[in-house]
Amino acid sequence: MPFQPPDPHYEERVRASFARQPFMGLLGAQLIAVGPGSCEIHLPYREDLGQQHGFFHAGTIATIADNAAGYAAYSLMDVGSSILTVEFKLNLLAPGNGTLLIARSQVIKPGRTLTVCLSDIAVLRNGEEKQCAVALVTLIQLAGKPDSPPSS
Amino acid sequence: MPFQPPDPHYEERVRASFARQPFMGLLGAQLIAVGPGSCEIHLPYREDLGQQHGFFHAGTIATIADNAAGYAAYSLMDVGSSILTVEFKLNLLAPGNGTLLIARSQVIKPGRTLTVCLSDIAVLRNGEEKQCAVALVTLIQLAGKPDSPPSS
Amino acid sequence: MPFQPPDPHYEERVRASFARQPFMGLLGAQLIAVGPGSCEIHLPYREDLGQQHGFFHAGTIATIADNAAGYAAYSLMDVGSSILTVEFKLNLLAPGNGTLLIARSQVIKPGRTLTVCLSDIAVLRNGEEKQCAVALVTLIQLAGKPDSPPSS
Amino acid sequence: MPFQPPDPHYEERVRASFARQPFMGLLGAQLIAVGPGSCEIHLPYREDLGQQHGFFHAGTIATIADNAAGYAAYSLMDVGSSILTVEFKLNLLAPGNGTLLIARSQVIKPGRTLTVCLSDIAVLRNGEEKQCAVALVTLIQLAGKPDSPPSS
Repeated sequence: MPFQPPDPHYEERVRASFARQPFMGLLGAQLIAVGPGSCEIHLPYREDLGQQHGFFHAGTIATIADNAAGYAAYSLMDVGSSILTVEFKLNLLAPGNGTLLIARSQVIKPGRTLTVCLSDIAVLRNGEEKQCAVALVTLIQLAGKPDSPPSS
Repeated sequence: MPFQPPDPHYEERVRASFARQPFMGLLGAQLIAVGPGSCEIHLPYREDLGQQHGFFHAGTIATIADNAAGYAAYSLMDVGSSILTVEFKLNLLAPGNGTLLIARSQVIKPGRTLTVCLSDIAVLRNGEEKQCAVALVTLIQLAGKPDSPPSS
Repeated sequence: MPFQPPDPHYEERVRASFARQPFMGLLGAQLIAVGPGSCEIHLPYREDLGQQHGFFHAGTIATIADNAAGYAAYSLMDVGSSILTVEFKLNLLAPGNGTLLIARSQVIKPGRTLTVCLSDIAVLRNGEEKQCAVALVTLIQLAGKPDSPPSS
Repeated sequence: MPFQPPDPHYEERVRASFARQPFMGLLGAQLIAVGPGSCEIHLPYREDLGQQHGFFHAGTIATIADNAAGYAAYSLMDVGSSILTVEFKLNLLAPGNGTLLIARSQVIKPGRTLTVCLSDIAVLRNGEEKQCAVALVTLIQLAGKPDSPPSS
């Protein structure tokens, strides 16, 4: 699906918003690629991202599944708007056992108000990707609300 | 619904598992209470848990919504078993704008294989709780799989 | 949660909309009660509502879980608006084995645009209710769109 | 993903199960195709399948989204087992405005216990398909439970 972003500078806008999320810094998540209606986020493994078996915690998987969807949707939104996740549903398909978590999200239904994305999450282990989760994410565009804290 | 946990030492078992999750330490999440089929987790605000508006990142909300459900379910499970999240669905109802995130989860359907929990997430602001999210979480009991890494 | 419906004639409006859904007639579903932000729908068992084991088909459970949520939300909406389901998630907790299906839905977050409802679905068997499903439903208000076909 | 069904007669088994669901008969749903890990179900429009605007009722969309997933999963299951939907999540992307509803489901994660499917639902209008919904569905295999009522 070839989407036409209303804002030609969408990538810059997405990257600036990602950089404003301190939680991405805490995790060490990286915004790898943004296209019109798509986004890829990577999260390199660290021990403190793990659950009790040493695998990526489901919370880290959920976080980048949601974030990749948010920025896939945000790439298609208007300048001067911001975006919020309305809800998402995540199926965990395999343990997050590997060295890198990769979330790729794609807009499957753009909209002026609501946008729906499908996120695939894979884990890299011994050079091979294995899908470990899938998510359906619903996002809402808030027109005329800047994507930054009031103080900045 | 008064549940009867098969393991009288369920609280000790839940607390030990929580302590084995390094990601809880990274976030600063606290296991506040465990009952038979219920669990409460708190997450005090820090700037590095925030999204671009300075509120709790949706990923932190998802993380403790899922974790509270996992331990609510785990409280009813057999000694020597472990637990995995199968899937969850989270509705974000209000911004996570406050000083403390509170996740309370309750088993609504226990089972030998699958357990379903409902998690309510509130944010504390000026001494008042406001519900900011709700989640339905499905968990699976893995019989005969210890809840710890192979090496420990 | 005591909600204040903007339209004092909300019950009449909900009942009229329910009556305009031919699919409710095909199933034999009954709108039992509507309150401000709540709704109860019943579905008496018939053999042709069953799945392969003779229980209520999951599709019938999903249908009234969604419909009860829709009308719980619609009770709080403005005159002249209509409502659409954005998405829902349903957990099936027990077989729909009984003589009557009962869906009760409650608004947990009202909103000008989006409303979120929680639906509990029970099945009546030998005079006792047993919860057989639970659903989280997100609905959207379409302002200025009448709740009826163009031709009527 | 090329799946290898353990039962070479999977199609016959799926078709027999579909034929045992009286609710499919009430709706007029047709099992169009079954492959290893995939299934396609059609539902021709009738007025009594409609909601208040005359479009396919969300309940009919949910029903065939779930059923297509169930039979996609069932195609990969063992002889002598049956299948139940654990939960599903459905996003409605566009009104079900057309003459035929088409649900195509694909197994994205097979498993001995749990299987996860992705269902795409389209509506045919003026000879063109338009996606109107997407669903993630989790199913459970019940080993040693026949897929038919006790009496048959």
